[in-house]
Amino acid sequence: MSGSHPPSERLPFEALVQLLQTIFVRHDVSQEVAQVLAHNCAAAQRDGAHSHGVFRIPGYLSSLASGWVDGRAVPVVEDVAAGFVRVDAGGGFAQPALAAARPLLVAKAREAGIAVLAIRNSHHFAALWPDVEPFAQEGLLALSVVNSMTCVVPHGGQRPLFGTNPIAFAAPCQGLAPIVFDMATSALAHGDVQIAARQGHAVPPGTGVDRDGQPTTDPQAILDGGALLPFGGHKGSALSMMVELLAAALTGGNFSFGFDWSGHPGAKTPWTGQLIIVIDPDKGAGGDFAARSRELVERMQAVGVTRLAGERRYRERARAQVEGVEVGREELAQLVALSLPA
Amino acid sequence: MSGSHPPSERLPFEALVQLLQTIFVRHDVSQEVAQVLAHNCAAAQRDGAHSHGVFRIPGYLSSLASGWVDGRAVPVVEDVAAGFVRVDAGGGFAQPALAAARPLLVAKAREAGIAVLAIRNSHHFAALWPDVEPFAQEGLLALSVVNSMTCVVPHGGQRPLFGTNPIAFAAPCQGLAPIVFDMATSALAHGDVQIAARQGHAVPPGTGVDRDGQPTTDPQAILDGGALLPFGGHKGSALSMMVELLAAALTGGNFSFGFDWSGHPGAKTPWTGQLIIVIDPDKGAGGDFAARSRELVERMQAVGVTRLAGERRYRERARAQVEGVEVGREELAQLVALSLPA
Repeated sequence: MSGSHPPSERLPFEALVQLLQTIFVRHDVSQEVAQVLAHNCAAAQRDGAHSHGVFRIPGYLSSLASGWVDGRAVPVVEDVAAGFVRVDAGGGFAQPALAAARPLLVAKAREAGIAVLAIRNSHHFAALWPDVEPFAQEGLLALSVVNSMTCVVPHGGQRPLFGTNPIAFAAPCQGLAPIVFDMATSALAHGDVQIAARQGHAVPPGTGVDRDGQPTTDPQAILDGGALLPFGGHKGSALSMMVELLAAALTGGNFSFGFDWSGHPGAKTPWTGQLIIVIDPDKGAGGDFAARSRELVERMQAVGVTRLAGERRYRERARAQVEGVEVGREELAQLVALSLPA
Repeated sequence: MSGSHPPSERLPFEALVQLLQTIFVRHDVSQEVAQVLAHNCAAAQRDGAHSHGVFRIPGYLSSLASGWVDGRAVPVVEDVAAGFVRVDAGGGFAQPALAAARPLLVAKAREAGIAVLAIRNSHHFAALWPDVEPFAQEGLLALSVVNSMTCVVPHGGQRPLFGTNPIAFAAPCQGLAPIVFDMATSALAHGDVQIAARQGHAVPPGTGVDRDGQPTTDPQAILDGGALLPFGGHKGSALSMMVELLAAALTGGNFSFGFDWSGHPGAKTPWTGQLIIVIDPDKGAGGDFAARSRELVERMQAVGVTRLAGERRYRERARAQVEGVEVGREELAQLVALSLPA
């Protein structure tokens, strides 16, 4: 939450899911899609990942109203090979496409040892960790990449080309919640820049440039014709390029620079692709993978690491289970208004 | 090359391969293994990747003489599932294990759309890009990770735990050499620290810490009981953790902290594991993958990127094809001496 701690309410997770689902359905989204998006968005809010929580609802609705994304799209799953599943998301959201292909993907990963899901013609407007964490809950490893929209200057370049292009990874860990990370390959995630702009905070040096290509710590200057930089210089930039190749070139989705939404004022959701690789660790020769990942975690703690990947989310989740999910009072009032018949 | 440009010779690539092969064979390495290692090391030298070129030969020989690595190991390939191949490298080098499993891995990737090779009980003392580039030469995508030896402090930790844990990726590109990158997840590769120490150069700020955990730009202080830092803060650290999980926990290889070579003075080669994922892009819905990756490259050039991933290596390679592979005069004399009967 922000430093100023505006007044907030807490409500049960399922109530928030229901509220968001009602909002989506009232804004031209099918029941099936609304259910998936509502759960995804409520889970981010529950876990304290506020840049992908209810903060995103106006963006979803703006994009839907613009006719840019199809809230009623029915994904088409294609069984391509022993380890390869494709989905045409039909110009709808990526999460229902993943949900539709998930059983086949998991069956293939368990049978072949590894399987890949290539989603195309899809809009991803959410965090990436909710896509991978459930695989680790089932004892599998998952790696996912998604490209987004031109807003990151490649290392050595002068103008933006790549998206924020996150990479997410999840692995089971014996006796603990899965190890999960989700990192933008940009210095900062786009949602965090928006949050900083809304709250009037500066962003760290090295995050981005203004419209003239000059370094800036003003998030609004980054959003107003400026651009982000990759994290870690040429290495983060190479990873971002890899995400374009895997999430777009391989799947058949658009590159981050490959779509033109100028004819849809209000469009916010990038129309690209997503790749998910799932591995069955029981096929490895490592014995009990979860026991070994626990060993790694314990050794990390022994050298002084106090905060593990995903730990903050699990802590917020546990608190929300007892006390309810925190939503700003003003935000909640807006959500309730959006859920009512027009 | 160093700023001081010591005198050097140029010799044909095949002559360098033959020289290195002879050296390996004279130091208790089988013909089969010697051939693979000699080609790998000569290719790094040819491509200007000097930290993994002939500079490494003394380390190889020291490790072999210590009895730590088996230069005569015969890898055992296991066909586990439609997309999963395992290799027990038998305490030998990783590259001959990859060579032994490669035909099966490629066949599975083309059939299943994706396949993974899990190498364990292996020593990897080379660059990682030579392992992935050949897949892209055949029209496939390849992603590989290998863990190494404790020398990197996890983000938020006080003492080293991870290895330099590189990630390499290769993809075909129409009309151009494959797009290939190979990045340590440490701020600098271990070989580059050794080169800097040998040449008396400082390393960039943020590269590492001394034995007291204090930041230093002295490469010798990093090598003498100090440690490296991950690149890009918590993000590079998370990627390094992922490499430990994939290359060690999944394969059944040792973690970077999981082996004790104190009983083998002179041992230099980390005894860990390696993972390689190979994808057939023809299974995607992107049409001609190589044409799309070419499109990406052209767009990168259009926003001002002048140096592409792998480009410097290809330039050095082309020059070496005409003029021969450059080797320092003194180094070459040492190599010749090592190749002669004792």
